[in-house]
Amino acid sequence: MRRNVLFIMCDQLRYDYLSCAGHKSLQTPNIDRLASRGVRFTNAYVQSTVCGPSRMSAYTGRYVRSHGSSWNGVPLRVGEPTMGDHLRELGVRCALIGKTHMAADDEGMERLGIDKDSIIGVHVSECGFEPFERDDGLHPTSSYDPDPIYDAYLRQHGFNAENPWEHWSNSGEGENGENFNGWLLKHADKAARIPEEHSETPYMTRRAMRFIEEAEAGGESWCAHLSYIKPHWPYIVPAPYHNMYGKADVQPAIRDESERVSPNPVLAAFQNERFSRNFSRDEVRETVIPCYMGLIKQIDDQLGHLFAFLEERGLFDTTMIVFTSDHGDYLGDHWLGEKYMFHDQSVKVPMIVYDPSAKADEMRGTTSDALVQMIDLAPTFVDFFGGKAKPHVLEGRSLLPLVHGREGGQWRRYAISEYDYSGDMARLEIGLPVTDSRLYMITDGRYKLVHGQGVPPMLYDLETDPLEFVDLGRDPASAATISRLREALLHWFATPVNRITVSNDRFTRLDDAMRHFDPLIGPGILIGYWDEAELAAEHAARAAWREKQGLK
Amino acid sequence: MRRNVLFIMCDQLRYDYLSCAGHKSLQTPNIDRLASRGVRFTNAYVQSTVCGPSRMSAYTGRYVRSHGSSWNGVPLRVGEPTMGDHLRELGVRCALIGKTHMAADDEGMERLGIDKDSIIGVHVSECGFEPFERDDGLHPTSSYDPDPIYDAYLRQHGFNAENPWEHWSNSGEGENGENFNGWLLKHADKAARIPEEHSETPYMTRRAMRFIEEAEAGGESWCAHLSYIKPHWPYIVPAPYHNMYGKADVQPAIRDESERVSPNPVLAAFQNERFSRNFSRDEVRETVIPCYMGLIKQIDDQLGHLFAFLEERGLFDTTMIVFTSDHGDYLGDHWLGEKYMFHDQSVKVPMIVYDPSAKADEMRGTTSDALVQMIDLAPTFVDFFGGKAKPHVLEGRSLLPLVHGREGGQWRRYAISEYDYSGDMARLEIGLPVTDSRLYMITDGRYKLVHGQGVPPMLYDLETDPLEFVDLGRDPASAATISRLREALLHWFATPVNRITVSNDRFTRLDDAMRHFDPLIGPGILIGYWDEAELAAEHAARAAWREKQGLK
Repeated sequence: MRRNVLFIMCDQLRYDYLSCAGHKSLQTPNIDRLASRGVRFTNAYVQSTVCGPSRMSAYTGRYVRSHGSSWNGVPLRVGEPTMGDHLRELGVRCALIGKTHMAADDEGMERLGIDKDSIIGVHVSECGFEPFERDDGLHPTSSYDPDPIYDAYLRQHGFNAENPWEHWSNSGEGENGENFNGWLLKHADKAARIPEEHSETPYMTRRAMRFIEEAEAGGESWCAHLSYIKPHWPYIVPAPYHNMYGKADVQPAIRDESERVSPNPVLAAFQNERFSRNFSRDEVRETVIPCYMGLIKQIDDQLGHLFAFLEERGLFDTTMIVFTSDHGDYLGDHWLGEKYMFHDQSVKVPMIVYDPSAKADEMRGTTSDALVQMIDLAPTFVDFFGGKAKPHVLEGRSLLPLVHGREGGQWRRYAISEYDYSGDMARLEIGLPVTDSRLYMITDGRYKLVHGQGVPPMLYDLETDPLEFVDLGRDPASAATISRLREALLHWFATPVNRITVSNDRFTRLDDAMRHFDPLIGPGILIGYWDEAELAAEHAARAAWREKQGLK
Repeated sequence: MRRNVLFIMCDQLRYDYLSCAGHKSLQTPNIDRLASRGVRFTNAYVQSTVCGPSRMSAYTGRYVRSHGSSWNGVPLRVGEPTMGDHLRELGVRCALIGKTHMAADDEGMERLGIDKDSIIGVHVSECGFEPFERDDGLHPTSSYDPDPIYDAYLRQHGFNAENPWEHWSNSGEGENGENFNGWLLKHADKAARIPEEHSETPYMTRRAMRFIEEAEAGGESWCAHLSYIKPHWPYIVPAPYHNMYGKADVQPAIRDESERVSPNPVLAAFQNERFSRNFSRDEVRETVIPCYMGLIKQIDDQLGHLFAFLEERGLFDTTMIVFTSDHGDYLGDHWLGEKYMFHDQSVKVPMIVYDPSAKADEMRGTTSDALVQMIDLAPTFVDFFGGKAKPHVLEGRSLLPLVHGREGGQWRRYAISEYDYSGDMARLEIGLPVTDSRLYMITDGRYKLVHGQGVPPMLYDLETDPLEFVDLGRDPASAATISRLREALLHWFATPVNRITVSNDRFTRLDDAMRHFDPLIGPGILIGYWDEAELAAEHAARAAWREKQGLK
């Protein structure tokens, strides 16, 4: 039976802004319905707390330490194997509809003589995807993403401007048609200047449907990465979503005055950023969060259409559907805005996995608190399509054993996330060189340690302090816990997945032979033999073993 | 002025088997003369203690953790930047004459559509070198290296056989013309069945001369990697070198009975290997070591010819010459044979750097005890040819400041080496998974720590125990030292050089701007601004800064 994967990713969607995840005033019935048909993971961690590296981890199934694309705009090095590469090997068409935040390694391609416009060159440039529609949702006038199809679409529909994305879809409109700068938080309560059907989320949903129709018509197995730009800023949403929620729907900020008293220097630096200072003000939260909720509600509504589209075509019988996000959004919690740090609001994401297989029936509608990671998705898809595990390349683990109820909560001991703050004011404030400006988070589910060079550790006890108000990193009583987690981190470092050109099997397949004789005497590389008698004895040992194995 | 590099590497040559390094019975006047014209480094460490990964570190200027080619035969991943890539950027022709132990990443090239036979494909296959002559000196009948030019050369000169390398150059001949298997240590005292001039070392030396003539005729700057296969096994050497040294010249084994009393399990496993058991016998040492010395003497004589050749052409005025080895050889010291472990006999190598520049005059004939590493050579060559440092790719440091006497002994705090024992019996004996079978050595010059998962640490105090007889790894009194070195190792791990697609400068060039305003408002990405007033204030700050910088 032909199988497919629909891999839906939101951008900057917090784990707790879904009704199935317990949000008190936001209803997301379509996403909830997906959760009721699949498994919802309540401890899903991304491998970096900013778009680019988190996505590169998702698309390679590898930690940032391995793929090296440690910040937005850092090109993914040519040759880094991607989800698309692994799935194409299995005959699956792997396409992108939306955002990746990929920067192409032009220098590397030039060094290797790869034509950017060739099929392979496009895959290398688009982190392994066929770019059915690439749209990073970031169109400043500086021409970051100079000519997206969506802009042409807007112009086609009469929305003309130098930058129609900004002028129409991401600006606010006053009651008398005035234009409000949609980048400014103050205007998050205005409606975007675009009829809802032409805004980004419905547009991208329709593009996903077009891809699926095309792939289905071609009779191909497919993996469609529908990658929504929202609810990422600019925080602005068209009517009717712009005023669907109000102040009363805004949940209290998760923060405590004590968090501002002698915070860790890295945390202090991020609390001191404009986005944090603004989101620490109630006025800002009360203006932006209803919009953020509206953006999510719009996604949920669009997913309703998409799921109906799939149902009509019977695709729920053959298609694995994953719903997740690349990282969260502090929205003022912990006196922070944006992401970057490692509180759950930032590093934890929604993760729902719907598997159409009968094997998944028993677990439908359940939640799992197993520690899972974004890098688990690539191996999950390989597994779903019947591919062989590749632990020498893919650092995650297939989630299917959890989705099928074959394994439980003690499935992984540690989740790890990384953040490179070389480009942040925090580096300047702390006064570290670029090379030292990296943070590593490790959690065993109970404790969460953040390790960085030249700064004290941060430690949270998620059991006694689930809201993560108390940083125990400088508490002498925590020394043993910190030491234990640092040991685990050292273990992780000391077991790199860098030997990507040969499988682990290459080293283990001779184990039994090696227990009985020196396997190198086969090809005739004789290391350390004294004389003919020793060699003859070893050849005899080899012959005896081979006879036992039924080999000639 | 056109400049060149002659990069000479031996294989398995110990740091202390040169007369300039204090060997008592071996005279190497030509190498000594090079040392008298350059700087000899007495603490030069390789990044892995086996050929392939050590060489991949040499040829990429990167640690094994970074290039991933952790054992012999593990292909260097396509796209890993090499010395050849960096030097070609500077207009230098970078050629190989001899061994690299490179395995090509055929799968990776296929995935990227790189034709193996194209110029780029050949560079990728030959770890960045133009293979003027590739010869790994390993020709088992299994066709590891199926058709080397040297075999054709032998046949041309009448040395016919299915495998002329093995049959003539690496077999011994008895007094009545009998054939002795040159792979067996017992026959190390026989002369190889080949007239000296046709053996590998003189052949490869002549090939280097041919390359230099060709490159000089072409008026090109060149880097010639003359990579001798010897004194690596098979331990056999032609007359007159086969009996130039005898038992009386063999120095006492550096070993102590205490080293066999409850050794660390990894060390125990290697002491238990056939090569270690045999080399622990005096008969074996007394048979093999004179041959090993003869092989080195032959190299020294050939270097005499090569240096004369360079002198005649005035090339000593323009050519940097480096002499080193990929790792050492225990030869029975510490009850071990071969290499793999991290005693100085294995992990330390000879390293002589001759720089023709006048700046180097003051230091000629001196030694330096600075901690230097094999990965320092690639940045040294880049520096010598006037290239820009690339710390985001090259993990070593240019040695020129040391060679010019501008910096001294406190130049680097730690040297690091790695060994992947996935393919060794040690893994089976200890019972570890492949992923955990890695050792990391870190030394600060005084102490040397070997860290491995699932085994106790090994620790040597090089000051109180320069012969490394006493493993302090399980001594409670060493806890603080071990802890300190583990911290340093964690720091090394936590500062990976994996962001190879952008320079560090990309993160620092905006430092001053960032101190004065938000650099993102230039391109118009406005993160966290509340209103027009805030934005205007930031634009004003930007304008003021730009005016101060003399920018419009």
